[in-house]
Amino acid sequence: IPSDNSTPNKVQELHVYEINERDRGSPAYLRLSQKPVNSLGDLVPFSNKIYTGDLQKRIGITAGICILIENKPEKKGDRYEAIFSFYFGDYGHIAVQGPYLTYEDTYLAITGGSGIFEGVSGQVKLQQIVFPFKIFYTFYLKGIGEVPEELLCKPVEPSPAVEATPAAKACEPHATIANFTS
Amino acid sequence: IPSDNSTPNKVQELHVYEINERDRGSPAYLRLSQKPVNSLGDLVPFSNKIYTGDLQKRIGITAGICILIENKPEKKGDRYEAIFSFYFGDYGHIAVQGPYLTYEDTYLAITGGSGIFEGVSGQVKLQQIVFPFKIFYTFYLKGIGEVPEELLCKPVEPSPAVEATPAAKACEPHATIANFTS
Amino acid sequence: IPSDNSTPNKVQELHVYEINERDRGSPAYLRLSQKPVNSLGDLVPFSNKIYTGDLQKRIGITAGICILIENKPEKKGDRYEAIFSFYFGDYGHIAVQGPYLTYEDTYLAITGGSGIFEGVSGQVKLQQIVFPFKIFYTFYLKGIGEVPEELLCKPVEPSPAVEATPAAKACEPHATIANFTS
Repeated sequence: IPSDNSTPNKVQELHVYEINERDRGSPAYLRLSQKPVNSLGDLVPFSNKIYTGDLQKRIGITAGICILIENKPEKKGDRYEAIFSFYFGDYGHIAVQGPYLTYEDTYLAITGGSGIFEGVSGQVKLQQIVFPFKIFYTFYLKGIGEVPEELLCKPVEPSPAVEATPAAKACEPHATIANFTS
Repeated sequence: IPSDNSTPNKVQELHVYEINERDRGSPAYLRLSQKPVNSLGDLVPFSNKIYTGDLQKRIGITAGICILIENKPEKKGDRYEAIFSFYFGDYGHIAVQGPYLTYEDTYLAITGGSGIFEGVSGQVKLQQIVFPFKIFYTFYLKGIGEVPEELLCKPVEPSPAVEATPAAKACEPHATIANFTS
Repeated sequence: IPSDNSTPNKVQELHVYEINERDRGSPAYLRLSQKPVNSLGDLVPFSNKIYTGDLQKRIGITAGICILIENKPEKKGDRYEAIFSFYFGDYGHIAVQGPYLTYEDTYLAITGGSGIFEGVSGQVKLQQIVFPFKIFYTFYLKGIGEVPEELLCKPVEPSPAVEATPAAKACEPHATIANFTS
């Protein structure tokens, strides 16, 4: 049986900002519960832009769905089950599943990936900054080779004021990764 | 390259009861097919309570969606594709995907996890007891450290009469895991 | 801690054809966006037949959902997030998640499996042949034992004319795998 050495146990941290710049028609809140408050039955497909942790480069998009599980009046927020992917242009994608709570940070499971993320496992921390427009993620990646330098960077500290650089927002060639996902 | 020893190949069995106590507005059967019988197009978001296999402690909830694939008149039942997570309070969660057949036992894939279940793989057996209110699961967990003692227990034999102890139903402190998911 | 040797790093290739023979009421295009063109908010549950790469044997079905992410007029097509499983009769199933673009080939993540595919990881290449009726998949499977001989075969070269043999279409006993999923 042949084998390779491409799946070390090393944990690599990767920081990503997800920002809803309100130009993708996202999210689509489908009030299928037909109830006046958010309720089980509501579904929320979404797709936002993602940037490197230093906000200097456009990476791609998120794409997936949030399933409304329960409205929590005492928390002034909602519990969702989130199932979505992060797209990294030519590098491939990472699929995740887990809790999205609008009122506190959570950890989601990394369920798989493609390209340089083929065979990935681990978890990702979701930190809400401005609901529902700015989210900061820290991936703890296992089972893959070295993540490329341009994806690794010292992240900008999360704060409500964060936004991508004008060059990254404009997708200027020096401010995107190769074949960034649009 | 640093490495760790946290992912042994040992298989650990974990038993969980999922019980619909009809107090969470679940499931939400969305008849989007607009057909008189269950048909492809129907979606069923759901969230139920989960208890330890001995029914002595409230663990948390399930959360996710069943996609109606086909009604099987000859089986008097339905095939669903189920995509959901099991929430274990402070311990984290396990994500799964696979077949849910209302007329026979199935195995679903464990697709990932968080917290003590970070990096988990394996499969889970789903045994229907009382459709659709009581289900018994046996997880075969790989790739993680020792599962905590309080989650491992001699399960109550599945039968239509099973229910959680009054203390567990009432979420009394001694009858829940730490920060059980509600 | 006991351990086993059942998860070699060997990559095994497995070829599968997914063919929509228009007899399963699939796909169910749910235009929940309520917009005239395909838009975020639309959901597409589906289930098609799958055959071995040589088109000699019926394997089972696919089952899952495509989430419309964006219509791409310049590509004359759509981006979907696809979340589904491949069912292999008594052998078990493989769950996948990732991009489905109606205008180019993609790689999806393998997120887990059951039966002989328990603990599987890797990725799968999706090649569109005739939209949306014929798709050719190449799985790159890791972490599992030897895939059975009858699933491994020299695939028929993808072309618009491909179809399963009459015996496989008719599910004659010699032209199906054991307990093929219907």
